[in-house]
Amino acid sequence: MARVCDDPWVDYPNDQAPGAPVRSGIPEHGRIPKYYAVKARIDRLVRELGEGRPIPTERDLSEEYGVARETVRQALRELVLEGKLRRRGRGTVVAGPKLEQPLSLASYTEGVRRQGRTPGRTLVTLDRFPCPDALAAETGLTRGEPVWHLERVLLADDERIGLESTYVAVARLPRLDTDFDPDSSFYAYLEGLGIVFGDADERIETVLATPREALLIGTPPALPMLLIHRVSRDTEGGPLERVRSLYRGDRFSFATHLRG
Amino acid sequence: MARVCDDPWVDYPNDQAPGAPVRSGIPEHGRIPKYYAVKARIDRLVRELGEGRPIPTERDLSEEYGVARETVRQALRELVLEGKLRRRGRGTVVAGPKLEQPLSLASYTEGVRRQGRTPGRTLVTLDRFPCPDALAAETGLTRGEPVWHLERVLLADDERIGLESTYVAVARLPRLDTDFDPDSSFYAYLEGLGIVFGDADERIETVLATPREALLIGTPPALPMLLIHRVSRDTEGGPLERVRSLYRGDRFSFATHLRG
Repeated sequence: MARVCDDPWVDYPNDQAPGAPVRSGIPEHGRIPKYYAVKARIDRLVRELGEGRPIPTERDLSEEYGVARETVRQALRELVLEGKLRRRGRGTVVAGPKLEQPLSLASYTEGVRRQGRTPGRTLVTLDRFPCPDALAAETGLTRGEPVWHLERVLLADDERIGLESTYVAVARLPRLDTDFDPDSSFYAYLEGLGIVFGDADERIETVLATPREALLIGTPPALPMLLIHRVSRDTEGGPLERVRSLYRGDRFSFATHLRG
Repeated sequence: MARVCDDPWVDYPNDQAPGAPVRSGIPEHGRIPKYYAVKARIDRLVRELGEGRPIPTERDLSEEYGVARETVRQALRELVLEGKLRRRGRGTVVAGPKLEQPLSLASYTEGVRRQGRTPGRTLVTLDRFPCPDALAAETGLTRGEPVWHLERVLLADDERIGLESTYVAVARLPRLDTDFDPDSSFYAYLEGLGIVFGDADERIETVLATPREALLIGTPPALPMLLIHRVSRDTEGGPLERVRSLYRGDRFSFATHLRG
């Protein structure tokens, strides 16, 4: 595979972006997996083409790089998982940059709007059940008291990008099932009722989408996702909500500002 | 696959942990992928066994659940990627919980110690080069001025769990190559020189490990990783460092506390 691996551009470019992997991911022993060399080439092509532009077919790419189609396919698969390419119909196009959501007490709605996108939500389920032990322990709610579970698909510009489960006491929002429009901002609804956030604990991790989640969000199963757990309290420290927000790892990043 | 799919425990358990996927990931139409039903069963077994305990062999599991070995293999592969199981020698054992690192200006060292683990680092490279355009634009350093690039593998209890690249001006740390022990805390070194952090911008995303990164960290290639970008400044707002920290997605989560 001299054709792709001897290419000088895959060597350590000191003018590379500082956020990029060092040496474009070449192992120390100098042997680059064939598919990875192809991936790095297509990645460069992606940057040249720009958002929304189609890339050549698998067949054209395998001919151009002199590699098997399965090799090209593996490279494309990873670039899709990473959000650099996306499938559109039968072709593959260059994806836009990841949305950058603030890690803050601001709502999903506000974060998406700040990036010039239109937020939306689709109701999956709204049901109530007695607060189980684990939820009581995490939030400070009373075991057995009625809680709502509100589950919604999150949208940005009509694209499904996440899935959110909110758990909140029925006593706090007794009319949630009749007063609240599930396509609107939940935080705006709380604000309208005079409920003010005090603080929250958040934890962020990467998980694979379950088959059900993949189906609801419309992603390939086992796509790496960013999962954010939030437990929030009101200004008196009383339990407010427990949220499980799952975002497409290929479409989202999270930003925060830290002070010393 | 009635044997695994009709099992009542895979139905929506209202006493499930609030951080768990709803309905254990069963698609609305009620058909569970065979491998996923097996995965959910092994997941339950994992919770029963506890950290460090070996799970049955692929053959035993495929016999017990009445499914093909490839089905068991796919389930195990995902549980390994998610950090619930880990390979040990020729067997597979239950993994410990993910380490929870604070998103704060505190150092890696401090975060790992707080969890009762011993932090360590192994030097990969320390070199210097003229500050490229992209790095200058991000940090406020002057294009062309000499910068250090310090790359280290991060360890916790001698286990390789991440890879960190730090970019910092040579003018600020002229003796980094002679004074600094690369196996020690970089932030402790800065502190010793009287350099104090003012603030930082951080961005967190999920990416796949490159082959070189996988080799350095000792993970399977294409394991989902958490990538944290940091640009930090001193108390006068002057550029301090640009860091690219890559953490094993199966071993790490990040936590933050938010205020209204």
